Amino acid sequence: MIRIGILGYGNLGRGVETAVKQNADTRLAAVFTRRDPSDVKIKTEGVNVYAADGIVSHKDEIDVLILCGGSATDLPKQTPEYAKYFNVVDSFDTHAKIPEHFAAVDAAAKEGGNTAVISVGWDPGMFSLNRLYANAILPNGKDYTFWGRGVSQGHSDAIRRIDGVKDARQYTVPIDDALKAVRSGANPELSTREKHTRECYVVAEENADKARIEREIKTMPNYFSDYDTTVHFISEEELRANHSGIPHGGLVIRCGSTGFDGENKHIIEYSLKLDSNPEFTSSVLVAYARAVHRMNGEGQLGCKTVFDVPPAYLSPLSGGELRKLML
Amino acid sequence: MIRIGILGYGNLGRGVETAVKQNADTRLAAVFTRRDPSDVKIKTEGVNVYAADGIVSHKDEIDVLILCGGSATDLPKQTPEYAKYFNVVDSFDTHAKIPEHFAAVDAAAKEGGNTAVISVGWDPGMFSLNRLYANAILPNGKDYTFWGRGVSQGHSDAIRRIDGVKDARQYTVPIDDALKAVRSGANPELSTREKHTRECYVVAEENADKARIEREIKTMPNYFSDYDTTVHFISEEELRANHSGIPHGGLVIRCGSTGFDGENKHIIEYSLKLDSNPEFTSSVLVAYARAVHRMNGEGQLGCKTVFDVPPAYLSPLSGGELRKLML
Repeated sequence: MIRIGILGYGNLGRGVETAVKQNADTRLAAVFTRRDPSDVKIKTEGVNVYAADGIVSHKDEIDVLILCGGSATDLPKQTPEYAKYFNVVDSFDTHAKIPEHFAAVDAAAKEGGNTAVISVGWDPGMFSLNRLYANAILPNGKDYTFWGRGVSQGHSDAIRRIDGVKDARQYTVPIDDALKAVRSGANPELSTREKHTRECYVVAEENADKARIEREIKTMPNYFSDYDTTVHFISEEELRANHSGIPHGGLVIRCGSTGFDGENKHIIEYSLKLDSNPEFTSSVLVAYARAVHRMNGEGQLGCKTVFDVPPAYLSPLSGGELRKLML
Repeated sequence: MIRIGILGYGNLGRGVETAVKQNADTRLAAVFTRRDPSDVKIKTEGVNVYAADGIVSHKDEIDVLILCGGSATDLPKQTPEYAKYFNVVDSFDTHAKIPEHFAAVDAAAKEGGNTAVISVGWDPGMFSLNRLYANAILPNGKDYTFWGRGVSQGHSDAIRRIDGVKDARQYTVPIDDALKAVRSGANPELSTREKHTRECYVVAEENADKARIEREIKTMPNYFSDYDTTVHFISEEELRANHSGIPHGGLVIRCGSTGFDGENKHIIEYSLKLDSNPEFTSSVLVAYARAVHRMNGEGQLGCKTVFDVPPAYLSPLSGGELRKLML
């Protein structure tokens, strides 16, 4: 049994807890929180919740620590810090900062004789893997990534910061015509506006100026100004009834050509439709926790990414079983 | 430069030749054939064609030998034989016999200090990888594989063996309603007949009894009797004009659920649309030749499958470049 520790009991931490329950070779050893542990009620019976402060004293009870904090401020500190003491897996998703995060975690993990896998999930994660495989197979081609239809936490938060907004939910939606053009093999050049639209569901405070809120959303640089954005004002009840889930998904497509004159076209497409973004991400984290445990046992130390992990290491099945059942 | 040898210059061997041309870090070193080498004209200038008999004397000119024979009779003999002398990659696709093929190649490769990867292509190959990844992430779920729309060589050959048939092409076609049901997350149980139809284009000999040919096709056990099959009699010219390509493709879908009560559904789908089945397969073979070369350099000897190869090994890019560009 692989003993899993969870640091941070938000959506992602709760997802890890449910994923551990689905995998017969893993068990939850402990949950660590920065809140008062007595305030945190978990679903798994007989497992303790401890203060994050004292986590190092639980070193010998845990095979792999899954870091369930955020990429903005938590993980850049936590992953290098805890990789000194634990095998770790994180879902660091600030693409531009991956190289420096990798270097910091690599040094810490090697110092501690541990193994780390960073940036695990679906993007980065399964989408990255599909970009890599497709590029290696079809060097002569073009990549497309679409996200959605799904809730963007960052964009929802950006709307919530606008004066007069009580709550909000933002969906990123791929544009059908763009998808059709890509799937046709036409290798279109697509602008930001041509790939996705943004749908916003906003609960305004009483007497708030809705026209101003809508204008502020639609003109917000980086987040909305480059997109066709629609804003729907709805009641708090409607938000709760129809928009309380956290679905997401998307597609990675590569169109490439082969033949002496590039005369044959090929389209590789990978798509995800997820009812719960955090639970799916957590499920990927737990599969990589299994791989981390095995790599550490083999003396493969330091920081890895999904690119470095042999696929077989994600599975509880033996090599012989995998060849017989899945090849 | 990785020096690639090709054994067998049919559709697959020619595909490897074009794929090598697309990859800047590989070059074609030699082609080996069981035909008279003077009868085999290849497209790459300055590269020799040799008799397969003398292949071992060219051992030092080749880093990886790609075996382009068939799975029925060629590869079960060739791969274990040549793995004694060369790093090898093959596309052995008789799923039921993979365990014994693996054992034979593993023993030979270890004896020779070589590295082999067997069963490379898209099924087995990329489809297998997607089954493994999806199963590791969603242990609680159900797998579906669909093939087509594409030409099945085996089924086309079976039709050609019928008395009165001059030529034939058979397309395997996934049934839309089955795909829709799977994508809906309904986890349907689908019979063979409910998943695929078979479309046959047949050139009959003059005065042949077409009704008998059609009956013989539709009632042929294993190949057609379990499917809804349509038979179209066409002219030789029409076959040449409209059915001379070798397209194929298909989909691997896993529907799974997460959550403490399995309340959230997730659908992972991988699909391929290929203008040329052999050229795509060849492109996968060349990417794995790169991996084999690297694994052998690191002392990772014996037989491997796509499950054992770290994804990064397929790419000509460094770890740092991959993390920066594709993660």
